[in-house]
Amino acid sequence: MLFLKRFYNKLFPKDREFVNKLSHLVGFVPANESIYKQAFLHSSLSGDVTMNNERLEYLGDAILDSVISEVLFSRFPKKPEGFLTETRAKIVSRKKLGRIARAIGIQELLSHNNIVITGSSSILGNALEALIGAIYLDAGFKAARNFVIKKMIVPHIDLSKIANTELNYKSRIVEWSQKNNALIKFRIISEQDFKTHRIFKTELSVNEKHISIGEGPNKKSAENAACRLAIEKLKITDN
Amino acid sequence: MLFLKRFYNKLFPKDREFVNKLSHLVGFVPANESIYKQAFLHSSLSGDVTMNNERLEYLGDAILDSVISEVLFSRFPKKPEGFLTETRAKIVSRKKLGRIARAIGIQELLSHNNIVITGSSSILGNALEALIGAIYLDAGFKAARNFVIKKMIVPHIDLSKIANTELNYKSRIVEWSQKNNALIKFRIISEQDFKTHRIFKTELSVNEKHISIGEGPNKKSAENAACRLAIEKLKITDN
Repeated sequence: MLFLKRFYNKLFPKDREFVNKLSHLVGFVPANESIYKQAFLHSSLSGDVTMNNERLEYLGDAILDSVISEVLFSRFPKKPEGFLTETRAKIVSRKKLGRIARAIGIQELLSHNNIVITGSSSILGNALEALIGAIYLDAGFKAARNFVIKKMIVPHIDLSKIANTELNYKSRIVEWSQKNNALIKFRIISEQDFKTHRIFKTELSVNEKHISIGEGPNKKSAENAACRLAIEKLKITDN
Repeated sequence: MLFLKRFYNKLFPKDREFVNKLSHLVGFVPANESIYKQAFLHSSLSGDVTMNNERLEYLGDAILDSVISEVLFSRFPKKPEGFLTETRAKIVSRKKLGRIARAIGIQELLSHNNIVITGSSSILGNALEALIGAIYLDAGFKAARNFVIKKMIVPHIDLSKIANTELNYKSRIVEWSQKNNALIKFRIISEQDFKTHRIFKTELSVNEKHISIGEGPNKKSAENAACRLAIEKLKITDN
């Protein structure tokens, strides 16, 4: 049934230009054009939530998270949960998604709806998430997963590189402590030896008060992990 | 192949008691026992991340989010993204998940691994998420989706009730403003009429400074939405 609908759509699309561009982008002929049109409709063009792309973005965001989670889970079989969560956050950051959306050519479909492309990467990134939601509804999880892996990750994301760029949380904590006249201290609380690796646990205290414990394969990375938690806990922002 | 493995497992499970309990819990005979055993192994019993359930919990958490997102998306076709996100957060809260995990009987499989059940609902909730991750890896997205819908949502979650319990963000903001001697003001900035409903937009200012804009079908709910955003923006915590 779905196959027939796809076939029919291929022969007689209601909006041939849109369907052509879309099929090229997603790698298959969509069965239900209208849901994709919704994915590209920014809320500034329709406040009606059943028409614009906000709901689809919400759905696509969750599907994207699942696929990225699975990809990182298999790509880094020995890494702890904290590493996977952090790497996922780097990939699905607004900035990164906006860049991927642009590289994929989302703007061509947005402009189809006469949106003035302001160059806002968040509009593009959101539309990309909404597109993933639309693919999921139109063609199922496997199709959405395929799209994320083949069109987003493989051509545009260097997983090893992202994984290795450790965000420097320690420098942020140091900067914050100077600004706030706070005394920060690190203390190694344990060093475990496993067959293949070691795990350091380090405590971070501020003004002699326990704040967080981080772990990692070396002192530096354990300290950094403690700082990451402290930033969350103390709600330290960049501004 | 997978079918044969399941069939074989049914006839000659390595650990019949575990496989029986597990099959009863998930509703099918698992192909790969070991991944489920990992799902029930708390990090206090193994610091080795390739053995304990933390990585699976990370994966399952994302899959659970996807399924809940889709369920809410279809169940509430006219609700805005903010409502869906908020309702999802209520469902996947630590407390709620712990309760569902207990109702499902997760503790029986945990005790299989000789964990002393401390009654901590977070250990149970995390194991439930890890189980979802294990089902995904062992039997695919559809099986994981089925489990979430048939074993968790249908018997244990009253979606309409959860959706209607609006969290009272306004009272938190009012309390915070009193504590901090801040002046809060609400101002309706627009009222849109649609065929079937109205949308109010309300601005919240603190000490005459714009903080957030919330929207909803009536003044109260728009104010509450503005307060929710303000709590995030101002990083107001409960303590």
